[in-house]
This record gives sequence, structure tokens and C-alpha cells, in this order.
Amino acid sequence: MTSTATGPDTQRSSVRDLESMFAPQSVAVVGASRRPGSVGYAVMRNLIHGGYAGVVYAVNPKAKSILGLRCVESLSAIDDRVDLAVIITPAQTIEGLVQEGANTGIRNFLVISAGFKEIGGEGVEREERLRALAQSRSLSIIGPNCLGLINTAPEVSMNATFATHMPQRGALGLISQSGALCTALLDYAKGRGIGFSRFVSFGNKVDVTEIDLLRALARDPRTHAILMYIEDLSAGEAFIDACHEITHGDKAKPILAIKTGRTSEGAAAVASHTGSLAGSDEVYDAIFKQAGVIRVESVGELFDCAEVFIDPVLPNGRGTAIVTNAGGPGIMATDACIRKGLRIPRFQEYTIKSLRFQMPATGSIKNPVDVIGDARHDRYRAALDAVVADENVDQVVVIVTPQMMTNVKEIADVVAEIKSYCGKPIIGCLMGLVDVYPAVEILQKHGVPTFTFPENAMHALEAKARFAEWVRSPISEYRRFEVDREAVVRLFERELHEDRTQLVELPALEALKHYGFPTVPFALAKDADEAVVAANDMGYPVVLKVSGPKILHKTEVGGVQLNLGSEDEVRGAFEAMIASVREHLGEDVEIWGVLVQKMLEKGKEIILGVTRDPKFGPLLMFGLGGIYTEALRDVAFRFAPIRENVAGQMVKDIRSYRLLEGVRGEAPSDLEAVAECLLRLSQLVTDHPQIQELDINPLIVYAKGQGAVAADARIILRR
Amino acid sequence: MTSTATGPDTQRSSVRDLESMFAPQSVAVVGASRRPGSVGYAVMRNLIHGGYAGVVYAVNPKAKSILGLRCVESLSAIDDRVDLAVIITPAQTIEGLVQEGANTGIRNFLVISAGFKEIGGEGVEREERLRALAQSRSLSIIGPNCLGLINTAPEVSMNATFATHMPQRGALGLISQSGALCTALLDYAKGRGIGFSRFVSFGNKVDVTEIDLLRALARDPRTHAILMYIEDLSAGEAFIDACHEITHGDKAKPILAIKTGRTSEGAAAVASHTGSLAGSDEVYDAIFKQAGVIRVESVGELFDCAEVFIDPVLPNGRGTAIVTNAGGPGIMATDACIRKGLRIPRFQEYTIKSLRFQMPATGSIKNPVDVIGDARHDRYRAALDAVVADENVDQVVVIVTPQMMTNVKEIADVVAEIKSYCGKPIIGCLMGLVDVYPAVEILQKHGVPTFTFPENAMHALEAKARFAEWVRSPISEYRRFEVDREAVVRLFERELHEDRTQLVELPALEALKHYGFPTVPFALAKDADEAVVAANDMGYPVVLKVSGPKILHKTEVGGVQLNLGSEDEVRGAFEAMIASVREHLGEDVEIWGVLVQKMLEKGKEIILGVTRDPKFGPLLMFGLGGIYTEALRDVAFRFAPIRENVAGQMVKDIRSYRLLEGVRGEAPSDLEAVAECLLRLSQLVTDHPQIQELDINPLIVYAKGQGAVAADARIILRR
Repeated sequence: MTSTATGPDTQRSSVRDLESMFAPQSVAVVGASRRPGSVGYAVMRNLIHGGYAGVVYAVNPKAKSILGLRCVESLSAIDDRVDLAVIITPAQTIEGLVQEGANTGIRNFLVISAGFKEIGGEGVEREERLRALAQSRSLSIIGPNCLGLINTAPEVSMNATFATHMPQRGALGLISQSGALCTALLDYAKGRGIGFSRFVSFGNKVDVTEIDLLRALARDPRTHAILMYIEDLSAGEAFIDACHEITHGDKAKPILAIKTGRTSEGAAAVASHTGSLAGSDEVYDAIFKQAGVIRVESVGELFDCAEVFIDPVLPNGRGTAIVTNAGGPGIMATDACIRKGLRIPRFQEYTIKSLRFQMPATGSIKNPVDVIGDARHDRYRAALDAVVADENVDQVVVIVTPQMMTNVKEIADVVAEIKSYCGKPIIGCLMGLVDVYPAVEILQKHGVPTFTFPENAMHALEAKARFAEWVRSPISEYRRFEVDREAVVRLFERELHEDRTQLVELPALEALKHYGFPTVPFALAKDADEAVVAANDMGYPVVLKVSGPKILHKTEVGGVQLNLGSEDEVRGAFEAMIASVREHLGEDVEIWGVLVQKMLEKGKEIILGVTRDPKFGPLLMFGLGGIYTEALRDVAFRFAPIRENVAGQMVKDIRSYRLLEGVRGEAPSDLEAVAECLLRLSQLVTDHPQIQELDINPLIVYAKGQGAVAADARIILRR
Repeated sequence: MTSTATGPDTQRSSVRDLESMFAPQSVAVVGASRRPGSVGYAVMRNLIHGGYAGVVYAVNPKAKSILGLRCVESLSAIDDRVDLAVIITPAQTIEGLVQEGANTGIRNFLVISAGFKEIGGEGVEREERLRALAQSRSLSIIGPNCLGLINTAPEVSMNATFATHMPQRGALGLISQSGALCTALLDYAKGRGIGFSRFVSFGNKVDVTEIDLLRALARDPRTHAILMYIEDLSAGEAFIDACHEITHGDKAKPILAIKTGRTSEGAAAVASHTGSLAGSDEVYDAIFKQAGVIRVESVGELFDCAEVFIDPVLPNGRGTAIVTNAGGPGIMATDACIRKGLRIPRFQEYTIKSLRFQMPATGSIKNPVDVIGDARHDRYRAALDAVVADENVDQVVVIVTPQMMTNVKEIADVVAEIKSYCGKPIIGCLMGLVDVYPAVEILQKHGVPTFTFPENAMHALEAKARFAEWVRSPISEYRRFEVDREAVVRLFERELHEDRTQLVELPALEALKHYGFPTVPFALAKDADEAVVAANDMGYPVVLKVSGPKILHKTEVGGVQLNLGSEDEVRGAFEAMIASVREHLGEDVEIWGVLVQKMLEKGKEIILGVTRDPKFGPLLMFGLGGIYTEALRDVAFRFAPIRENVAGQMVKDIRSYRLLEGVRGEAPSDLEAVAECLLRLSQLVTDHPQIQELDINPLIVYAKGQGAVAADARIILRR
């Protein structure tokens, strides 16, 4: 990571230890209540009836006992160390209670009560005071305005929420910004038989953020996969760093995220192409891609993906075998498999031989294997044993439709048994709901992911295959080029000193040149002689463009001349241009001179850009120029700084990527040159926080090995 | 419909009456069995225990009785009219049995047995004989190789299948080519509480096809929506006609289809651009679009859509109001709504006033309405009453998350009550599975569609809004232009007589001209003088291209000269061209002459094309030229003949449509001219079955009002 980056985007949260929060040996409930239907009662009931392994202190000065527990008057009255205080009292009391708790040595608080930022006005101030208190006293506070915290580990078994369900024990960690959604998620998960390791509703995140919680879940050995529902992120770069770390290495864990508000927020007014294309959704997509977070669109998709990630075995590739007892669903599964980007490999010769020997003649021994409607568990076993051993097969989908002869329970037992030793992901696709249910239960018990329909199964498997590829991809570093940083500092200082915030052509291209970009040869000529010298220097043909602080529409005032092939043409064009500009704009128009540029050979037009997101920092853009960018919005985004391999990924990210690979016999474009420009741009914008927006438009890219050239650029500075 | 179209694509099935098949007063089961676990027993059990309202005859020469029914020896032995014979005996017996039945006057047969086309070899011949028998004796045969037939109408109550479930009574008709999938569908529908009116597994469709069944379901007043699972269609044009009829008019019914095999079939080898782009999936997409059939990707999506179509009330527009008791799900629903193409309208002033008066201050009275987590049924009622009355609201989504105070059953009662009088679609989104289940039951009972997650709900509602728009769109006719059809007949005869099947340039453009296409002015010149006369005639600049039967790569042999501005240039170019071609290809190369074409002004390049699908007939293609077509595959397909409004729809169908509307200050293109060319092309290819493939590439289109010109064309003929 560069050490030079500054600004709000790099505000890192230090890695903090929340273990005493998640596994406290004692919990005090402030606002514990005897009244059924109240939140204070629900939290007490969940703690006591949920089998919490530690000590509970019910803090209520008015009640003698709650659920058999003798109440204490206040936090100060507890004669024991309290690892976690859960607070459910009215909003205006909370600051005082936290202070009291901190004075008695409590470091962890879970504030369930609402009445803060979300109500506006005094609530916002109240929340700010609570945040300041957390920081000044080094406390950890989850909430306010949340459902609470669950840890299902047997040695903790803590349900500190007011939810009506204690979730099943399982391998999923979940963090959610919405408390109301949590109740729906718990209810849905219960119906689907999905269990959790830890479950946190973090509400307004006055102190503990999603990043702290992600790190805490990542360190929990019981958590195999992390689910996240988020409405906004607290930080960009720190989030990317944390997730990048969690999703790599030996103990890599997948993070699945729903981010809502995809379409509702409008982008702020901006001056550049890049800015106009970077809506809030593009921003979050860029963050998630860089972070290695798998973004999903809906709760259903979230749990579909979670289902396959419960099994920690990652596939070695995308080769998917299908074993089915019905032709139609086999075709559906094949379609879905290919559409989602997985592969249907051919089997090896020995697999086919084995299947031919064991399957009925009317079945299919190619992939998908059709064991036919009358198949019982023995035929499924024979087919699965042959298929999982095939080297071309990375994962297996077993489809069971309930036919007359189908003994679904025995088939499920076979699948579970084979799964236990085969070392490859296997999933069950049990088509139906009622007759197949006994089989679903068996597979769930043995940790085999189950689905009703092949489409959902394939969608989830593709996400897992993508994650496996991400985990195995080498971690690329941040590359720094030798550049003349000081020159750009001086250039920007000079421009800002002159009150110019919009840098076009000359100064913009100069800045790029200082950062090693290949730029079109250019020079500012004060008179025709200088123009001729410059043109001779760079070689013909050249382009002349008038340059001056107020001259915007150059073509309209005769201020552009293309394709000048000789000294005489340059001289003539220079004089004519100055005359024409003065005629159009008046004799006293300020003219700095005429920009002489080498006329570039034709190549593919690319646009590179940066816009600085107010919250997350500099966002890089890459796209094909012209209509592709403007009309088709076919662009890729990432946040700077980018790792070296990310530049190449950006280029491949656009839909029109094929046009750069060379179609209709064209040579492929020099994508390495483009990628290097993106890396230099990343460095430039990270080094210089004054850059608000920047477009390189066009960057002309030539055939592979022949480089790219920035033909024009525009930089908008901020003070 | 044109009366001139011929070929397999226009093979219409006459509309046939299958009512005695669906509602027979007597059923004979041939192959009825006493043995539990056998198909012959399962069918008997389903008929008898399913409460069939007519008489059942169990045909079995070896058993005395089955399920209490006295058996008969054979079909001939039945002394009563038999409306339907269900046959379950081995394949080789079936031809004889059908013959015997036909001799006793039976017209309707349901053949469940397998052992026909699907096993290949003798099975194929067996099926052909059965088909011939059906035709020669005017029988109706469903099957073979199917699950059977269900009619849940109370006065029929017939389950003539071997499925283990009798489906609930409901408003959905279902036809399926896969029997195995049917068992899964029945099991799934049972779990989801979805009911059917009629349910047909039609197997190999030896006689009765999906078109016959669609028409039969369309005529059934109990069926509100038709679901279809299909692996291949029997005919294209007849299918389009039937569906077009079913999905229009006062009694319009939606048809929802899963077509599998999207990605597995490869396209045959073809010579044209159009042919190379028309895969099987594009073909089916084109058919479904023209037919007004809603194509879905999965069984889950099929039932999601079916769920909203059970309620026959169609929305007036896409304006969707959301009422929720939780913020997060409200945002999710808003996102999904907009992403799917629905709208979140502003409420009218009186609605806002009413809501302000009745909702708590911390809620939201804008769309989406947040009634807050502690809302009970009374607050839901107030919000819903205000919202459904709003003129901007076309449909309402009610989200309920199970919170502490939420009385889900009472809320469901309120929703059902308001639905009963409001006249607008209302759907429930009950987030969860367990706690919300009592509410799901109530809504299902009252015919209110229910969903677990807002994404699925919005997806289904969008399909319904699209259907409402389709139903209300005026039915456009087939337009016929005055053309010189005979001239094209003669032209094709001449070319085929000369053994030329690939028509390029001159003859291809001539054919287009006879059909009134605007073509580039062109003439074939035998010598330089003729070339000059032609050029003077059409005006300069012109293009010269050498023309001869074997000269393929014209540019490489110096056979193309562009931008010739004068008589002298034309004369010089002509002589040089002939010399160059002879030098490259030998003195005795056959040269017909030189094609003189007017050099066209720059415009947008479009490609129009036709490829003749072996099964479904001529498939029209429209796309932007060059890379858009080849690299981005951004094209639209429809089958000829097309109705007048379809041409305009095709143009709007491509992703790059915006480029034709005019971007970056460009004038919009003349899309009416393009649409007219598509209609003329439809007529040309319908009139002339010899056309195997055709590309007009490019068609240059100019600004609105300035027309389009075919600059080059290629036709491939078949004999």
C-alpha cells in the first residue's frame, strides 16, 4: 500500500478485539423487564431460555426479580466484573448509563434502544455525544437502534437480542445494518434449516463498524462464511483492505453482501465524463470487486450462496457433473450451468466404461448422466461413485425428482455418504417440496447443500467457483513508478495560484508527462517561427490549436487546424488562426499562443478517468471512447490505489472487451500499455489529493507492442 | 396473414375440440392393475380416490376386480360409450389396442406407456405407425410417454395420471413435455399451496400438440393463466398465431413458458451473417416475443409469475406503491422495483395529507410508506386505504416483517379485505417462513399472491405489467406493398438455371429494387463508355467494382475504385481495373463488366438479413452494422411474415438502440425507413421460398425523413 495516500478514504480502523463482546462471561441487562411483550423482557427471556453459559445481571431498580433472577439496582451495584452491558432503556438515559458503566470498568456495550440518528434533530446530537464518549473512554459500543447479538458457540450460547427465534447452530456469520430485516432473516433461515455461528445487528454503528465485525467473524473458527446486509459503508479503503485480507490465505472466508439502495440515490453534479458515469451503485460495485466480496441481489440469492459455502471444500475448477433421474431437469440444469459460466466436461474413458457397465441401456452415460426414472439408491451410488472419481469433474449436482420408484431417503443417505469421503463439492437438487422433504432433512444434517431447482444451485456454485479462483489468485502488489512528483505539485500550485481549477490540454498533458504517461508530442508556440521549430522537431503532419484562458469552442472561432504537412502550411495556419480568433473574439482576447501537436495515427480510442468520491476517494474509470462510454455506459470502475493485477481486470471488465482483442482480422490492441497507464493514473491521483476529476480522452491505443498515447486530457482541481 | 406463404412453417393445425378428452363421462383404463407400485394401479387409484365424477372401466383380462371395480376383458367388451381410453400396456400392444378402441367408436386416447421415439430404432417406427393411425381414423391421442391428464373442475374431478399427488383446485393450466418434471412440479406446487385447473403431460406428442392443448386451456373458463414446459415446438407460425389469439382480446390469458435447451444446441453451418447469429435460443426468443408468450428461466420464476397471474386483475400501468413495516426491506423493494422496470410514483397531495394525519411521525409517508415496526393491522389498513385510492398507484406491494408487535394474521385479513374491493393488484410480501406462515395461508385462501422476498415479487409484477401492455396494444395487420413479384421469380429462375445460388451485388440489388427497396443507383458497364454514361446519369462521385462469376476478393486484384469524381477518372479507372484484374487472375478470367455505383453519403450502417430456419421458416434479423453485429451480437430476430408494428419493435429491441435515437447532438436516424425495409424484406422472403439466406449489408440510414439506402446485398438461393 502506498504510504502517500491521504484523505477520508484512508481512515483505517485499527484491528480491535471484540472477543469479550462476543463471548462475555457476564452480561448485565439494563432495562430488563418483567412485562411480556416488552423488549426488556424478550432479551432476558432469550438469554435465560437460550442457555447462556455465563452470569446474567438484570438491572432494574423497580423490580425484585425477573425470570427468577434477583434484580440489581444499577450497574454500579454489581459486585462482579461485567464483560458486556446490554442497554434497552430510553435514548436520553443512555449516555449516563454508559458513563456509569465505564466508571465501574465495563468496556463493552450493546445499545439496542432507538432514538438516535434515525430520528434526526436531537437524536443526531445524542449519537455524536455517544460516539465521543466511546472514543474518549476507549469503549466498544454496538448499536444503537439494533436487534442485538447472538453467539451460538456451545461454550457461550448467548442470545442477546429481542428476536423471537434462537437460530440453529451453524457455520454462517451474519452482520446486518437493518434490525427489522434480521427478524425476517432469522425466520426465513429457521424455515430453511440454516444455522448461524454469530449474528449481529449493528444498527447505527456509532462506534463498532462493519469492518470491526467482519474481522471478528473472520477470526471465529466456527464461522465458515460471512453474510452481510449493508445500506452504506463507513470507509472504502479500510473496507477493501479488511475484506482482501479475510478472503485470502489459508483461512480465507467468503463474504457475501447485499447492498441496498442500488437505484435510489442520485449522483452529485459533476463536470467530467467519469464523474457523470459513476453513480453510487458503480461505486459499491467497484469496492466489492476490489475487496473480493461476492455481491448478491436478494435475500434468496444470499442464502442460496450461503448454502454452498457452508461446505468449506472449494472446487478445483468449473467442471460440473450432473446426475439426474429425469431428462427435462437434466437439460434445465445443463442450460443453467452453461448460462451461469460453469462447464459441463466430458467424462474420461474409464468413467464412461464404468457407467456403461452399470447403467441401463436407455439412460445416458454422458454428462449429464441420466439414471432414468426408476433408479433407486443403488443406481445413484454406482453413477456417483464413477463420476466423482473422474478427473475432469470438479463438483457434482445430484438431481432427484420424486418418481414412483424413487426412495428419496435412501438416495439421500448415499449422497451424504459419498460426500463424506469424496473431497469434492456435491450438492443435492431435490425437485419438489413435500415428497422430497425427508431427503432434504438428511442432506442438511450431513452438511450437503440442497436446492429445489437447478438454476439456483448453478448460480450459487458459480459464485463458489469464482471465490475459489479469487482465493487462489496470487496477491498482487502496488507498483510505484519513478515519476516527477514535485513537478506536478508545482504545476498544480501554480494553476491554483492563478485561480485556474480547470486544466485543459497543455497543463493537463504536462502533468501526465511528469508521471511518465506516453503523451502526444506537443509544444506551445508564441509565434509562427516557434510553431515551425516545434513542428520540425516532432515531425509532420501536425495539428495547431489556439490556447488561451477564455477560448472554449476553438473550432467555431477557427482555432483548430488539422493535418498540416509542411513548414509553409504551419506558418500560414498560425497567422490565419490568430487573425480568425481575434476577429471572432475581439482584438484584446487573451491568447497564450498556439499548441502544436503531432497528428496521431489512427488507433482505438479509449477513455481513462478519475472522479473523487466524497466518501471513498479517487475512483478510476476505464472505457472505450466515444459512443461506447457515453451512450452504452460500458465502463469499469475501481478505487485508487489499485494493485498491479487490477488494471488488467478493469480492461477485461467491459462488455466490449472483445473489440480490444481484435475482431474481423484486426490486430489485438496493446492492453499492457493501457494497464500501465491505469497504474500510473492510480499513482498520480493518490499522490495529489488536489485532483477532483480527470479525463484522458482519448487515449489512443495501437496494436499490441506499439503502445498507447494520451491525445488530450482535462484535470479539475480542488483547493 | 398472407396467403402466399408456404413450407413447413405454415402447417397449421386446425382448431380441434378436446373437451371430451378433458371432461369425459366415461374412462376406460387399459392395463389397470391390482399391484400397488405399478403404474396401472396408480392411475386407477387416482381416478377412484380422486373422486372422478364419471364411470371408470378397468380393462384387465386377468383380474376380477381392482379397487372394488369389476374388471372387463377388453375395450370391445364394454357395453357403453367410452369417451376416453387411458392405455398403460407395453408399447408393442398399443397400436392394436387403439385400433380395437377405434373400432368400438372411441375417439380419445391417452397413451401413458413409454417405448416409442425416445428409445430410438423400432420405437421411432412404432410412433410413426401410431401417428398414421390417428390421422387415418381421425382420433385424438395424447402421449405416448407421459404422466397423464388432470382436470380439477368439480363436475369432472379427474386425475388420470400416475402422480402421487392430486393437485389442489386452482386457476392455473399447465402443459408439459416432460413427465418427470411434472411430478416435481406437482410436489412443489403442493408445498407452495398453488392449485391447477387442468394439468397435461403430453410426452412425445404423436398427435395432440402443444398448440391443440393451449387452445383447449384457453377455452376453459376456470383457467386464468397457462404454464408451459417445452423442449421443442412442433410448428412456428401456427404457434405464433394460436398464442397471439389467446393473449389478446376480452378473454386474453397469459402464457408463461420455460423452454429448455437454451445453450446446448449448436446452430447448423451457414453462409451469411444472419445465419451465423441465429442460434436455437434466438429462434425461440423470436417466436415467444411474436407470440406474446412470457418466457421464464426457471421453475421458481414460472411459479412466481403464475402466482401474480392467478389474480386476473391487470394493472393499468407500472406505478407501484410499497407499504412496509421495516426500512431495509422497503429499500430492497424500491431497488428491485426500479431495476425490474416498474415505477415508484409520487403520491397525490390528498394521499400524503391522509397519511400524514394517520401515520406516526417517525414513519415515512412518501412511497415507500413505512408504517414502522410497531404497526398493527389498523395502521396497515389506514395506509393501504389511502394508497390504493391514489390515481398514480397501479398496484400495491405490502411488506410485513415479523416484529414483536406484528399481528400477522390480522394484517393478512386486512390485506385480503382491501383486495376484495379495491380493483387493483395487491400482493403480499411476507418476509420469513415460520412466523409469517399463518398470514400466507390467509392470503392464499383469498387469492392474494404472496412472496417471501420483494425481488421475486417485483420480477413477477413486471411480467404482469408487460402482459397488460401487450393485451392493450392494438393488433397490427400484415401490410403488403405493391411489388414486381414476377420479375423476382424470373430473376431467381434465371440464376438457378445458370447454376448460380450465390447472388451478389447486381442481381441481389435488382431483386431488392423489384420489391421497392431504396437501393444505391447502380449499373453494369461493359466498357469505359458505358461506365461514363452510367456515371453521368447517376451523378458523381461514383464507385467502380469489377463483376464476374469467379472474382471474389475484388480489392486484392485491384477490382475496386472509390470516389471517382469525373468522366476522366471513371474512364481511367475502368481501363486500369480491367488490366489489373487480368494481370492477377489471368487473361481468360470471365469478366461480366464493371459495376458503377453512386458513392453514398455517410450515414449509419445497418444490417438486415434473413435466414431460413429448417423448422420454422424465414427468420428476419436487424442490427447495427460492423462490430455491433459481429462482435457484440446486438441483433433482433422475428419470423416472417411480421405484422406492421413488429418492424418498429425489432428496431427498439437492440441494446444499442440509443445510438439510432441520436446521441451527442446527432439527429435521430430515419427509423421509419428502416421499419419499411423490414416489412418489404418480410414480404420478399415470404413470397419466395427459394431464398435460403439474405443479407442487406450495409443499409445506410440517414437522418429522420431522409430515408435509407441498400448499398450492398447478397442472396443465397436453394432449389
